[in-house]
Amino acid sequence: MPKIKKIINNPNDCAAELLDGLVEAYDGECKKVGRGCIVKTNIPDGKVALLVGGGSGHEPVYHGLVGHNLADGAACGDIFAAPPPDIVLEGTQAVSRGKGVLYLYGNYAGDVMNFDMGAELAAEEGIEVKTVLIWDDVASAPPDRKHDRRGIAGLVPIVKLAGAAAASVDSLDELVRITTKARDNTRSVGVSMAPGSIPATGLPTFELGEDEIGLGMGIHGEKGVGLIPLGTANDLAPKLLDLIFGDDLAFNAGDEVVLFVNSLGSTTMMELLIVNRRVKQVLADKGIRVHDTVLGPLVTCQEMAGFSLSLTKLDHELKEFWDMPCGSVCYTKLQS
Amino acid sequence: MPKIKKIINNPNDCAAELLDGLVEAYDGECKKVGRGCIVKTNIPDGKVALLVGGGSGHEPVYHGLVGHNLADGAACGDIFAAPPPDIVLEGTQAVSRGKGVLYLYGNYAGDVMNFDMGAELAAEEGIEVKTVLIWDDVASAPPDRKHDRRGIAGLVPIVKLAGAAAASVDSLDELVRITTKARDNTRSVGVSMAPGSIPATGLPTFELGEDEIGLGMGIHGEKGVGLIPLGTANDLAPKLLDLIFGDDLAFNAGDEVVLFVNSLGSTTMMELLIVNRRVKQVLADKGIRVHDTVLGPLVTCQEMAGFSLSLTKLDHELKEFWDMPCGSVCYTKLQS
Repeated sequence: MPKIKKIINNPNDCAAELLDGLVEAYDGECKKVGRGCIVKTNIPDGKVALLVGGGSGHEPVYHGLVGHNLADGAACGDIFAAPPPDIVLEGTQAVSRGKGVLYLYGNYAGDVMNFDMGAELAAEEGIEVKTVLIWDDVASAPPDRKHDRRGIAGLVPIVKLAGAAAASVDSLDELVRITTKARDNTRSVGVSMAPGSIPATGLPTFELGEDEIGLGMGIHGEKGVGLIPLGTANDLAPKLLDLIFGDDLAFNAGDEVVLFVNSLGSTTMMELLIVNRRVKQVLADKGIRVHDTVLGPLVTCQEMAGFSLSLTKLDHELKEFWDMPCGSVCYTKLQS
Repeated sequence: MPKIKKIINNPNDCAAELLDGLVEAYDGECKKVGRGCIVKTNIPDGKVALLVGGGSGHEPVYHGLVGHNLADGAACGDIFAAPPPDIVLEGTQAVSRGKGVLYLYGNYAGDVMNFDMGAELAAEEGIEVKTVLIWDDVASAPPDRKHDRRGIAGLVPIVKLAGAAAASVDSLDELVRITTKARDNTRSVGVSMAPGSIPATGLPTFELGEDEIGLGMGIHGEKGVGLIPLGTANDLAPKLLDLIFGDDLAFNAGDEVVLFVNSLGSTTMMELLIVNRRVKQVLADKGIRVHDTVLGPLVTCQEMAGFSLSLTKLDHELKEFWDMPCGSVCYTKLQS
């Protein structure tokens, strides 16, 4: 495998320097807080706050989801590493406006441990924190073990809905209720074709044979449903949708959904669009109406090849939150 | 070089199928016209129309730039091939509302020939067409030979400004004037690290040595300033900016610009952010104020590695058009 040429400086500085660059990309809308947080500059008093976060290296998530009607801040770890508790605390203090803080992030053991410790430190400072874990990957554990499921691309629609709700609600409990519903109405599954590389070493994040792809493989190469031969877009899209439809959330004729077709990095928008063409055919055949389509490399693992499909089922309340505008480096949407 | 695993169907159907998928991604805001155009469904009567286009394979441009306060339609060619005149004509007829049509696209010989023939066919149908060519790549020819310069990533800010203008002006001449100013105020330069692959063959679009990168190389591997060793982000960003500052458009202290940091495909958002960090330092040192920053893989060549920097100098009029909201699969922006 030829060495990946990366435009970086000292590989050990990637996480710190990309955070600086991210803050700069917001042109005044956000500031850096402490050594690892990005926080909005205009959080109003009395707002219920939303803090996201996780390891770096998956840009534009997670820290690119800070923005208008999105997250108020993000606690950022090193490359592929959870943010330590002191960074979580700094982020919590910076976003808190007296009405409590919701932690919303992907269900990975390191993140859970560090965010939980951050929540304990925040409680000592008198800040109420609640947590909703994102576990949308249906391929990572059966439905009766949701707590073992990973959070993957579904975090984008879930954070979008939670961000709109956080701008609208009066209490942390209400934000927890809506965010939990958004999480419970979202299912994702992905497929991996080739690994990304670890910036500090240049080594691949996992290995795959030349003709095989990982069905349901996680964004760092975690175990999925199994290895299958590379097929066509027309074959693969229904296979992925079947895994979602076979799960415990019913998608019925007449349902409205948000569809998110995510690239894991180097998989092209051309491919996402060809996949989208087939996905829309399958959804139309089932009578499922796509209210909005999101496409792009938003949840990535460096230059990893692969994509995922996420469906979020909308009820009246979630649809209203979806239709609100939002803006960030990761995802921007006009009022519907 | 290991074979790139692509999620497609018949490689010869890529352009047609991605167009179907793109139309689907607009969820009713756009429709397919003829065999190769995407056109907005709600173009008002009496609007001065904006048609963009070019070869497929560079997604989300060019056809992803159709949308609210952006282009009214796009004429799409096959992979890396200009749209033929009959497709250009179909697009022209579909967007025309009696006030004329502006063609706005990158300066490549095949595109110019085919769009010009389309314009002749449109004239026979009584539709007035004018053309503004995009030639933002400072590395492709000296300033006194602008007509020999290629259009690269600068087309995104230029189409954004032209789209806002097209939604506002009363005459084609006025749209030509503003679009020409946006074009003349935009400069770009890129660097290539590794080729993308041609979907139909799997072959690389060009070749580069293991330790070299192409300074000023075009998005298909066209000749640039020369081959240089791979450097750090901190070294490379000022080198690229110097090429822009050495051109014939003055960027002075106090000027306001839009900055666009584009990935050519597989170069990660992490790298773009690390580059952005350094670019902002250099611009701040020169007293140039960044009004808005755009980052992402918007002008791509499949999974090509590399990035480009584009600067668009704003005057009062362009700033007003920039601050208007816009929305599309390629680029969405809230009201500033």
